[in-house]
Amino acid sequence: MAVYTDVPEDDLERFIAGYDIGRQLSCKGIAEGVENSNFLLRTEGGTFILTLYEKRVKRENLPYFLGLMEHCAEHAITCPLPVKNREGKVLGELCGRPAAIFTFLDGISRKRPTVDHCARAGAALARFHNVAWEFEMCRDNDLSLSGWKRLADTARPRADEVREGLGQAIDTELDFLEQNWPSDLPKGTIHADLFPDNVLFVEGRDPGMIDFYFACTDLLAYDLAILLNAWCFEPDHAYNATKGRALLAAYHAVRPLRDDEIAAFPVLARGASIRFLLTRLVDWLSVPPGALVKPHDPLAYWRRLRFHQTVPSISALGWEP
Amino acid sequence: MAVYTDVPEDDLERFIAGYDIGRQLSCKGIAEGVENSNFLLRTEGGTFILTLYEKRVKRENLPYFLGLMEHCAEHAITCPLPVKNREGKVLGELCGRPAAIFTFLDGISRKRPTVDHCARAGAALARFHNVAWEFEMCRDNDLSLSGWKRLADTARPRADEVREGLGQAIDTELDFLEQNWPSDLPKGTIHADLFPDNVLFVEGRDPGMIDFYFACTDLLAYDLAILLNAWCFEPDHAYNATKGRALLAAYHAVRPLRDDEIAAFPVLARGASIRFLLTRLVDWLSVPPGALVKPHDPLAYWRRLRFHQTVPSISALGWEP
Repeated sequence: MAVYTDVPEDDLERFIAGYDIGRQLSCKGIAEGVENSNFLLRTEGGTFILTLYEKRVKRENLPYFLGLMEHCAEHAITCPLPVKNREGKVLGELCGRPAAIFTFLDGISRKRPTVDHCARAGAALARFHNVAWEFEMCRDNDLSLSGWKRLADTARPRADEVREGLGQAIDTELDFLEQNWPSDLPKGTIHADLFPDNVLFVEGRDPGMIDFYFACTDLLAYDLAILLNAWCFEPDHAYNATKGRALLAAYHAVRPLRDDEIAAFPVLARGASIRFLLTRLVDWLSVPPGALVKPHDPLAYWRRLRFHQTVPSISALGWEP
Repeated sequence: MAVYTDVPEDDLERFIAGYDIGRQLSCKGIAEGVENSNFLLRTEGGTFILTLYEKRVKRENLPYFLGLMEHCAEHAITCPLPVKNREGKVLGELCGRPAAIFTFLDGISRKRPTVDHCARAGAALARFHNVAWEFEMCRDNDLSLSGWKRLADTARPRADEVREGLGQAIDTELDFLEQNWPSDLPKGTIHADLFPDNVLFVEGRDPGMIDFYFACTDLLAYDLAILLNAWCFEPDHAYNATKGRALLAAYHAVRPLRDDEIAAFPVLARGASIRFLLTRLVDWLSVPPGALVKPHDPLAYWRRLRFHQTVPSISALGWEP
């Protein structure tokens, strides 16, 4: 939620002149994207998003992220298309930072998604998995099992400040996941962060997807578990089985889950819980005292983990395959 | 530079349905406007700005501000036009706050204006004065002499923390202004805050003006002095006589200054300096220690005041009437 970089107007003008999108009409910093600086740019050629990549996104990963968006947009996924400059490149430099221009995506994200929104999100993720299956580049998921252990090492000394016994509980869960994590499920390109913030709804159209900066190569059904956790729990952290059923069924209708994916789903959901529990915990513990910005509450994902630990099979989530 | 209010999507949908602008396509919080929450809104009917008025803008003044924008937009001033809702009203309520929708204005504000930008800003202010002259509503300037004294009373006990002797220097200046402030110059509607942030340039068109929330009824030439102070000093606070000449000449060409306005200009420029010196000083002293957001430096306007104290007549500013 920030604009980090202040772009001098002359630099911006020069940058835009490198594209075939006409002259700039306006440019407003938008309060969106925690990783980058984003601007809503209007030119004679239309409306665009200008993104400046700040430190948190590694420069060497940008060709993967932008390549994925290009691939998806060209295969009927509604997502921002990186615009090529006059040299045919999608990545440029502005204010000493990597920068890119994207087509603007209409749509409204839903903070409180309904059952229907959950179903549409499930179907959208399945379509994305089908299309991104053909994307040829790979990127290891640095937030998978070994990454979780690194995060746990960082958080452990102070984890119990957040909740008594949390450090020990995380260790126990990581041991369980290490022994039970499936290795032979379908692996492909996953979004890995498809929270309601990142899905833009327009009535009567497929929802749009944004923010591909966690995308990587990993288990497709794990991505579905991330989606379920992000969409199907109420503000009081209670699981909403009606939403879960709608989301899983809609996904399955577009990309049918295999039996082994269905069997592994409760374990995947535990992994999807601990992944966000850990990143949120590390962020939470690294905030200086008195800071104005509160990070996401890690305990929301602790509650999800505790729930999934009690789930014996996917039918307990409200959906019968 | 903030979005203060988070608008639930259902409330927003209902609010927009009250207007004849089609369905909402997207809505992004923009990092602009220190007084209000602003959103860039796209609907089937076009692009708009949605403004929610936060505490700092008094509700009872809104009909004046919106009325002025309507008057100006209807008389060929490039400024946001408040859109009427289905009940014919320009002011509604959203999230418990007064809210309005405006036509979107293209254009780029110039942090480092050139001589040409200064001239165009001068001409734009003169056109605004001519058009707003016919606007029938009035609003007293609460940041004129008596307002400055109130601010000085607030700031005095700690003014010397900012600069040794500043409290005494302010008192001396206020005495001078009280004795020398002109009373019989042309008085009309002034913008009172036409900083480079608030002027949007598009090549080949009149620049647009935004942010009318300090507008009031006061001396027109005082508004010109505010403009000169905001546009014609360099980052090191040195006066740029080339910019000053261009700005004053361009204003004069559209609304010729009277002899008494020209004679009073050095005093008006001192008043325009102390007005921003005092509001910035009060803001500066009210920031809690360790806060992340630094307010504008009051000493920038102290330097302007010291400069104008040495100016015997308008010709010392580089312009011969």
